[in-house]
Amino acid sequence: MKALSSTARTRLGRLPGRSTGDRSVLYDILDDGMICHLGVIVDGTPRVIPTGYGRLDDTLYVHGSSGASSLRAGPSDDICVTVTHLDGLVVARSLFHHSVNYRSAVIYGRPRLVDDEDEKTAGLRAITENLTPGQWDIARLPTRKEMAAVTVLALSLDEASVKIRRGGPKDDDDDYALDVWAGVLPVQQTFGAPVPDPALRPGIPVPGHITRRVTS
Amino acid sequence: MKALSSTARTRLGRLPGRSTGDRSVLYDILDDGMICHLGVIVDGTPRVIPTGYGRLDDTLYVHGSSGASSLRAGPSDDICVTVTHLDGLVVARSLFHHSVNYRSAVIYGRPRLVDDEDEKTAGLRAITENLTPGQWDIARLPTRKEMAAVTVLALSLDEASVKIRRGGPKDDDDDYALDVWAGVLPVQQTFGAPVPDPALRPGIPVPGHITRRVTS
Repeated sequence: MKALSSTARTRLGRLPGRSTGDRSVLYDILDDGMICHLGVIVDGTPRVIPTGYGRLDDTLYVHGSSGASSLRAGPSDDICVTVTHLDGLVVARSLFHHSVNYRSAVIYGRPRLVDDEDEKTAGLRAITENLTPGQWDIARLPTRKEMAAVTVLALSLDEASVKIRRGGPKDDDDDYALDVWAGVLPVQQTFGAPVPDPALRPGIPVPGHITRRVTS
Repeated sequence: MKALSSTARTRLGRLPGRSTGDRSVLYDILDDGMICHLGVIVDGTPRVIPTGYGRLDDTLYVHGSSGASSLRAGPSDDICVTVTHLDGLVVARSLFHHSVNYRSAVIYGRPRLVDDEDEKTAGLRAITENLTPGQWDIARLPTRKEMAAVTVLALSLDEASVKIRRGGPKDDDDDYALDVWAGVLPVQQTFGAPVPDPALRPGIPVPGHITRRVTS
């Protein structure tokens, strides 16, 4: 597996010990996430939009309404896609060393507008399956008109900055003598009990691929 | 309470029913969150960085290392700060109508570098308390040197786009006859059991302001 490119914008000026060029770590962070934050420049100012995404091999797909200005701005300029997992609050003895445990991927590149119908379908499938795996095979497939209403962008996963912080607080030597609790408060994203649509026809059970995700 | 400004970049081109100009809704979304995604332009390309933040009245504070290039780029240019809560996966009968329930705030503006020491301390306190409320009063306060190592930016909460989607799927009329489950899978951010620092001195209990947050 090819290592991630090292460029001026992916090299970290500080705390390089938190970064990795390992592509499999990037894939894990992306595959564990549900939404990304897409950064584009619109009329000279940055805009950061939360949206769904999906990964197929070394390509990331994002989609939006064909009329969305944030996607129109995309293909002619570089964009940035960031996926972040907040894994814990790091509680230290000094306020200065309070921190968070996290995994983040910051991907840079010039996106490609997907106009091949097969790739567009594959990209939309990847996006759908990343949010709700199993749905592509049971829900009604998009019509030609629905496909036309959606824009899909492809971003190569070549230039990315992957950062991870794990573990407990790192306090200054003198502070370990303080009478202050220190440790980590873990943070997770969990799933509640499925809420059926009030208009659901009787006798349709919650599919296994959805019940299996509920946090027990 | 003054309504949020309506500008070209906060007016929504699509689905305006999901937006609100109600400032108290913006405050709730910010106060419920723990990290934001900060969008800046660095060398002509967008960069989206996850970071902590805090709110005091109608000002948002973010901080970083005094050497961080993403913060150096800030005060001379507009930035964008986005806070997103993923509240549920909306499972529809058609793939086209799959969606997510969410609350998001997208804030635009030119940040102000905070150089007044009292405001800088208040901003850092707001950031700390937004992540781990209660810690400012028990942990060791920052030294003068630690304060100098941190840059704090202030962003006015005047120009913001607030969007909310709630409720079940909205399917096309014909699709309600399909034999496909539809509904919402709720998503929450929850806290696990606190993990004490292995170097914790014996006899220091987990403080109540931390145990109270643990999801039962």
